[in-house]
Amino acid sequence: MERMNNNDEKLHNIRHSLAHILAMAVLEKYPTAKLAIGPAIDNGFYYDFDFPEGVSPTPEDLKSLQKTMRKLAGKGLSFEGKEITAGEAQKIFADQPYKLELIEEFSKEGKTLTAYTSGDFTDLCKGGHTESTKEIDTKAFKLTHIAGAYWRGDEKNKMLTRIYGLAFETPEKLKEYIAMQEEAKKRDHRKLGKELDLFTFSELIGPGLPLFTPKGTMMRDLIVERIQKSQEKFGFQKVWIPHITKKELYETSGHWEKFGDELFKVKGKSDAEFVMKPMNCPHHTQIYASTPKSYRDLPVRFIEATTNYRDEQAGELLGLTRVRSLTQDDGHVFCTLEQTKQEIKNIVSVIRDFYTSLDMFKNGDYWVSLSVRDTSKIEKYLGDENNWDKAEEILEEVAKTEKLEYKTVEGEAAFYGPKLDFMFKDALGREWQLATIQLDFIMPERFGLTYKDKDGVEQTPVMIHRAIAGSLERFMGVMIEHFAGAFPVWLSPVQVWVMPIGENHKEYAREVFEKLREHDVRAELHDEDESLGKKIREAKMQKIPYFLVIGDEEVSSKTVMVESRDDGKIGSNTVDEFITHVQKD
Amino acid sequence: MERMNNNDEKLHNIRHSLAHILAMAVLEKYPTAKLAIGPAIDNGFYYDFDFPEGVSPTPEDLKSLQKTMRKLAGKGLSFEGKEITAGEAQKIFADQPYKLELIEEFSKEGKTLTAYTSGDFTDLCKGGHTESTKEIDTKAFKLTHIAGAYWRGDEKNKMLTRIYGLAFETPEKLKEYIAMQEEAKKRDHRKLGKELDLFTFSELIGPGLPLFTPKGTMMRDLIVERIQKSQEKFGFQKVWIPHITKKELYETSGHWEKFGDELFKVKGKSDAEFVMKPMNCPHHTQIYASTPKSYRDLPVRFIEATTNYRDEQAGELLGLTRVRSLTQDDGHVFCTLEQTKQEIKNIVSVIRDFYTSLDMFKNGDYWVSLSVRDTSKIEKYLGDENNWDKAEEILEEVAKTEKLEYKTVEGEAAFYGPKLDFMFKDALGREWQLATIQLDFIMPERFGLTYKDKDGVEQTPVMIHRAIAGSLERFMGVMIEHFAGAFPVWLSPVQVWVMPIGENHKEYAREVFEKLREHDVRAELHDEDESLGKKIREAKMQKIPYFLVIGDEEVSSKTVMVESRDDGKIGSNTVDEFITHVQKD
Repeated sequence: MERMNNNDEKLHNIRHSLAHILAMAVLEKYPTAKLAIGPAIDNGFYYDFDFPEGVSPTPEDLKSLQKTMRKLAGKGLSFEGKEITAGEAQKIFADQPYKLELIEEFSKEGKTLTAYTSGDFTDLCKGGHTESTKEIDTKAFKLTHIAGAYWRGDEKNKMLTRIYGLAFETPEKLKEYIAMQEEAKKRDHRKLGKELDLFTFSELIGPGLPLFTPKGTMMRDLIVERIQKSQEKFGFQKVWIPHITKKELYETSGHWEKFGDELFKVKGKSDAEFVMKPMNCPHHTQIYASTPKSYRDLPVRFIEATTNYRDEQAGELLGLTRVRSLTQDDGHVFCTLEQTKQEIKNIVSVIRDFYTSLDMFKNGDYWVSLSVRDTSKIEKYLGDENNWDKAEEILEEVAKTEKLEYKTVEGEAAFYGPKLDFMFKDALGREWQLATIQLDFIMPERFGLTYKDKDGVEQTPVMIHRAIAGSLERFMGVMIEHFAGAFPVWLSPVQVWVMPIGENHKEYAREVFEKLREHDVRAELHDEDESLGKKIREAKMQKIPYFLVIGDEEVSSKTVMVESRDDGKIGSNTVDEFITHVQKD
Repeated sequence: MERMNNNDEKLHNIRHSLAHILAMAVLEKYPTAKLAIGPAIDNGFYYDFDFPEGVSPTPEDLKSLQKTMRKLAGKGLSFEGKEITAGEAQKIFADQPYKLELIEEFSKEGKTLTAYTSGDFTDLCKGGHTESTKEIDTKAFKLTHIAGAYWRGDEKNKMLTRIYGLAFETPEKLKEYIAMQEEAKKRDHRKLGKELDLFTFSELIGPGLPLFTPKGTMMRDLIVERIQKSQEKFGFQKVWIPHITKKELYETSGHWEKFGDELFKVKGKSDAEFVMKPMNCPHHTQIYASTPKSYRDLPVRFIEATTNYRDEQAGELLGLTRVRSLTQDDGHVFCTLEQTKQEIKNIVSVIRDFYTSLDMFKNGDYWVSLSVRDTSKIEKYLGDENNWDKAEEILEEVAKTEKLEYKTVEGEAAFYGPKLDFMFKDALGREWQLATIQLDFIMPERFGLTYKDKDGVEQTPVMIHRAIAGSLERFMGVMIEHFAGAFPVWLSPVQVWVMPIGENHKEYAREVFEKLREHDVRAELHDEDESLGKKIREAKMQKIPYFLVIGDEEVSSKTVMVESRDDGKIGSNTVDEFITHVQKD
């Protein structure tokens, strides 16, 4: 989930006012255009118009529309609002069919209608403008593009013309935003994924279903292994579950009632009917339940990187960040309420370890949402209230003792328990929720999970859901953009290129290459008959962390000439020195 | 695929004759029973009867039926056969409705009818008996059990009573078979899988969908890693593919036309329609196709342990050996026809390596089917004939130079190319096809795969499909039964139990345990307050390869007392000595 910060009221009012001014500018040039709606959005505003056939503006017309908008804004217009009756509204907007439709609907819903007038332009609008258009810096907005949009987002309706604009408080902020957008375009993980040969899509297989090439698969494995390694000492054990299940599993968990419509259904030729799993916790409960447990067996800790399936609309799919098959680095702990504190501390330590290896766990670059109940809507949450109190307390205690940068966010708890959600800022300042630790009082009960306590009495364990990277696909998408493809050495699918200069250097280059491979350094030998310059350009394009050039000097002294992507020329090294250098990265 | 060897004609005739004698014995005791059919089967014979209500035999009656059979066989009856017309047959079997139904059907099909008479019993039968019942050793057969069976296997028909018997040539062979069956029951992987806590099923998830516990998952990983390690040097690269696809992928590959009905279909709430993949080759072609290739890029070698889905009937599911979700250790090589020889040699070397680690690659315990075309039905096979000739030649050459125990089996080739199928014998003498190497001329063409040759001309690569273990589930099922759970050390999910005798030994035992874990020895510490005897019994039941007992002597001398599952007491070792010992296993 991405979250925007820039959403203060003043900026919203500027953007909304600009939507009105855009409509005025359009009507000046296209007096017969019909107006639909024009809201403020996250980076500016838009307005939807229905243009008479043959007179739609082209992208080239945006400049002159923008000029008109500047002229209008410069006039210092005000936005005079007043409540109107439906009858009055119908008169004012008599030749605006889309407004009439809205008026009818709002009236039916019993909503109060308001109209806002600036100069001789009046719009149906619920308000939120600047006092005067003088408050708008005319250098801080820009019309950007035209797109088609169905009236009310419904493809059965008419396709309208939407004009988009960016708007900020100052020209500097606008410039900054445009620069960030350009940087984002350069870093687009779909573009870089292709250039770096990390993943691919096939039209025969379908949208939203990425296939991972050897390099991309290596990255997936590196992520999973890194997490595994740092949590091994905490007793996590890998398990394996099938990707389909009878719907009974979700009827028991309660997901069927909530999400049944949204699951992929599977049918065979016989009467076998399954659904594809959208999460793993219910499956994992069945492994827990497969043998009787005593308090001595707890905590039981399962982990698994396994694929879930989401029935996303084709139009919502986006590279790796919105897919139909997503692989979660999932994990579940079954323990007593008393044990949760230590378990959560362990998981926090894994998260810290992992994001530190990415240099992302730094104050200011991350924060933790201690997601608790909305105490005014206590009926939304299931489970014993005392347990909830205790659990929220435990989470806050861990956040404190682990010195996490945390904020308590009321109402963000899941219905089954409170959470710690870890938010990380990427190189473009965008925030992503990646890791999560969630307490769950409900699912163990629904599945009748038990353990025998010291007195031989059956008790229900607590369940902790945890993800470190989240979905591997989305995580990779975020990391590709964050690092612009220049991954940390440990995450680079290829760490080193070995490049002999000439024919005489090939044999030794191969020796070096083989020694690197023996020591698990992910090296490639580039001894093709091409110029060194071309190879170095290619290595740089591929963001390879190190390249070793092998010439006469290196062959005779049995060394390698090391160049680093990040630190430039490092100089002459023995192969052993270089291996040590790479391995400590 | 399991193959039986005992199928010679003489034994078949004995078994078939016994079916007749069973019918005679039944009619002696139940004169109004109606006869259905009574064939010879792989380990004996059966006969299906329709008994009048309330007079069906119970398992207790089998003994007296068997006695009657011995008496009848002892008479030295012959089987006199003659061709009869439908009219004659209808007369003979006038009060046998099932026979009448068969007579009508056979007549319609234009089949010749024959009847065989022994004493005063006549059966409709196409022959294959002993000359005289004297040839039957009356101590070499045994009625075993009664089961229900629908007439003609169709559940819409009446349920008949089937009586089963075992039959062999000698009492020794019968005894041997029964002993093997008992051994097989003890080794049943479903029973051992539960005892060793390797996998489980959940009624909520569904039949045929195993879940793997931590130990079972460890075994899966050990298998995959062992194979990976031995093929790493050959340049195989891991890839990752989604488990669903649009059906267009299989329309292109040709599988849709052949197997479309048998695939699991996936539907979302929108118009998205997918199928679950039953194989991986078409997906892997799409990774090959994602970037342009030149001859310098070949061979391209992809591997992946990934799950396929089969719409098996619920009644056909069996533990791990017949499942609905099966994980193949799959791999595909794309190369030139000239390169296939070296590539196949590499794969043979991986297979040899892997099955040697299981002590199964020994002459007499395995053989290789060189599966070639049936030259009399050349039209069944797709692709260029010269390529076929060359490919069959290459496979045979590899089989020879690699000194494989091979037989050429005509007609066993796939329609897309010839194969090497590796058959292994398990501890009970049952044969399993596990590894396979298949050449494929068709799929690369169907997907338009190409590479540019040295002259810049586009060529179609050859594809090699290969599996080493086959499906992990089936492989594990076979290995559990082959080893009766006493896996080789490298495949044991837990290799060592560390057991302190008393309270004073716990601290050192933990030290030992932690040192073992640090050196990647899969150890468990058993310091529960239970008797050593009980722990040792449990360790033996769990087939743990080694257990270390820690007492006063060990604590003071910093050693461990080693006992081996296979070799008994090994004696006192330092921890380092023991680690070296385990790691070389």
